[in-house]
Amino acid sequence: MATIKDVANDAGVAVGTVSKVLNGLHVSEENKKKVEASVAKLGYQMNYYARGLRTNDTYTIAVIVPDILNPFFACLVFYIEKELYQRGYKMFLCQSQKDVEKEVYYFKQVYQNRVDGIIGVTYNESEPFLSKDIPMVIIDRHFKTDICCVSSDNFHGGELAVEHLLAGGSSRLLFIRTGSKLESETLKRGQGFEQACLRQKVAYDMVDFGDDSDSYWEAEIFAYLKRHFQNGRLMFDGIYTSTDGLALAVLELLRQMDIQVPRDVQLVGHDGLRRMNRGAYMLSSIAQPVEEMAVASVENVIQLIHKEQVDHLTILPVTFVYGGTTRKV
Amino acid sequence: MATIKDVANDAGVAVGTVSKVLNGLHVSEENKKKVEASVAKLGYQMNYYARGLRTNDTYTIAVIVPDILNPFFACLVFYIEKELYQRGYKMFLCQSQKDVEKEVYYFKQVYQNRVDGIIGVTYNESEPFLSKDIPMVIIDRHFKTDICCVSSDNFHGGELAVEHLLAGGSSRLLFIRTGSKLESETLKRGQGFEQACLRQKVAYDMVDFGDDSDSYWEAEIFAYLKRHFQNGRLMFDGIYTSTDGLALAVLELLRQMDIQVPRDVQLVGHDGLRRMNRGAYMLSSIAQPVEEMAVASVENVIQLIHKEQVDHLTILPVTFVYGGTTRKV
Repeated sequence: MATIKDVANDAGVAVGTVSKVLNGLHVSEENKKKVEASVAKLGYQMNYYARGLRTNDTYTIAVIVPDILNPFFACLVFYIEKELYQRGYKMFLCQSQKDVEKEVYYFKQVYQNRVDGIIGVTYNESEPFLSKDIPMVIIDRHFKTDICCVSSDNFHGGELAVEHLLAGGSSRLLFIRTGSKLESETLKRGQGFEQACLRQKVAYDMVDFGDDSDSYWEAEIFAYLKRHFQNGRLMFDGIYTSTDGLALAVLELLRQMDIQVPRDVQLVGHDGLRRMNRGAYMLSSIAQPVEEMAVASVENVIQLIHKEQVDHLTILPVTFVYGGTTRKV
Repeated sequence: MATIKDVANDAGVAVGTVSKVLNGLHVSEENKKKVEASVAKLGYQMNYYARGLRTNDTYTIAVIVPDILNPFFACLVFYIEKELYQRGYKMFLCQSQKDVEKEVYYFKQVYQNRVDGIIGVTYNESEPFLSKDIPMVIIDRHFKTDICCVSSDNFHGGELAVEHLLAGGSSRLLFIRTGSKLESETLKRGQGFEQACLRQKVAYDMVDFGDDSDSYWEAEIFAYLKRHFQNGRLMFDGIYTSTDGLALAVLELLRQMDIQVPRDVQLVGHDGLRRMNRGAYMLSSIAQPVEEMAVASVENVIQLIHKEQVDHLTILPVTFVYGGTTRKV
């Protein structure tokens, strides 16, 4: 049976253009004709009409993230909204922060037929409020119920960080983590780091300061770094952090201790944040494929809405990006 | 006639709590009782029932911004969504970028009774598609039609920048601007700067590089700075930029020219961006009252939905914040 991708390939247009035509949105007359010809030729009418029969569809997806103050989530939501619009969907934005009630309120929008599906980044204990067959894609987190998950290769991210720290000449490595301790793909950053250190037989330590939504962790990290500062130098010369936000905080603490980055200590973050989300990389980092993760999440949730089969877990590749906090080799 | 604020004052709870009770959302049993008692006592039932008669209400607001990659807009949308939820409203997020069609698509959601109102930051030529009586609040921009505008005191922001540059010892000032040239409150940043320079009889220049959504402006600014670099120093020793994003780009260019900030040149941005939108200020800057602007926009749009009178223009105060790029005095 022809898929929307087959139609796009046949017509020589983007999948988004096909979606727009199917959803009655404006495209150029030329593209509209091409798409309609391919739809007819490939027999895509079946799906099209089947879809037309879903009269309760709202063409609305609720997107749940902790908040968009975090530039990584802002970037993710940016691409999700773009992709949803391309496919004729509107987006409710829900910033759940630590509010389980708010998250569950948006879950209920599905049961009440006010949204068709959900894409969520959730670190709340909200799973008990979910039904199994809800069209939902979770980014990074594992739920016990069979919810589709999209993530990036966090384990390899940890390995890549070690590889680049060693290549730049570091020999005593430290992994610093903050964040929720709930089971999620992101925990693999530390696991990849540890495996690579063991494989390379390099000295390392790992510390986890837990939930970073309160501010006391910065003081705790500062105290930790000071405890490991002897004879004018830090006991570690290569640091990998679980996020770029954390790396920026660590960079500031190192500055206050008069430790030069990357001369004395190399620093690798994780996420791949850019200045103003567009410019230069703010740090040497493991960049997540944010746009690809957004597109995969949108694709999967729309397939789930249409009761199509999707992979339970999608893992997308990460890359190392240079941002001035490692030595160039 | 009692307003929602009177009820909140009488009950000793936040306006948001009253809204939640009126909209059937969960609050503590204690607060619910307090609110219901005050509603009865003050005769707020009138409004309450009148509101109940608006059976077409969707309790949804469309929020239009260029994009949330820009941390200032992310921060604004963060507070708008929070405030809307407090008042029982959901939020469609529309990132219009340069797409007039997309912006107009969201305007139409109002005419089609799919949203109750709009809050927008718009730099598109979309005004012809607006009807006069649409419940809409525009941030910063002026429309010829009588659309309610919320902004901050941009003129005083320019004055404050000059005041702090002079206090730190600068005597040859430069204002650099990028962005849309459409009529908006933000143009007053340069006007305030110029007036303050004239009043203080200080030498100054002003340059406008226009639309900053493409990337070539960075090269143009670099060329401009190089042209004004003589005998090892820049002809200006104090720079004020129209946004923090621009200031960060200028800071990077100055670094490449081996010009020390704030030693050789002081730099003041505009917006008040923080590291990861929560931490330290990224630059010395004129901080906009983002949360207050968000709350005022939400308040105004809800009043417009209920056909209540609102001020045509709300201007909220700005403050100077220190972020390391000016001399401490």
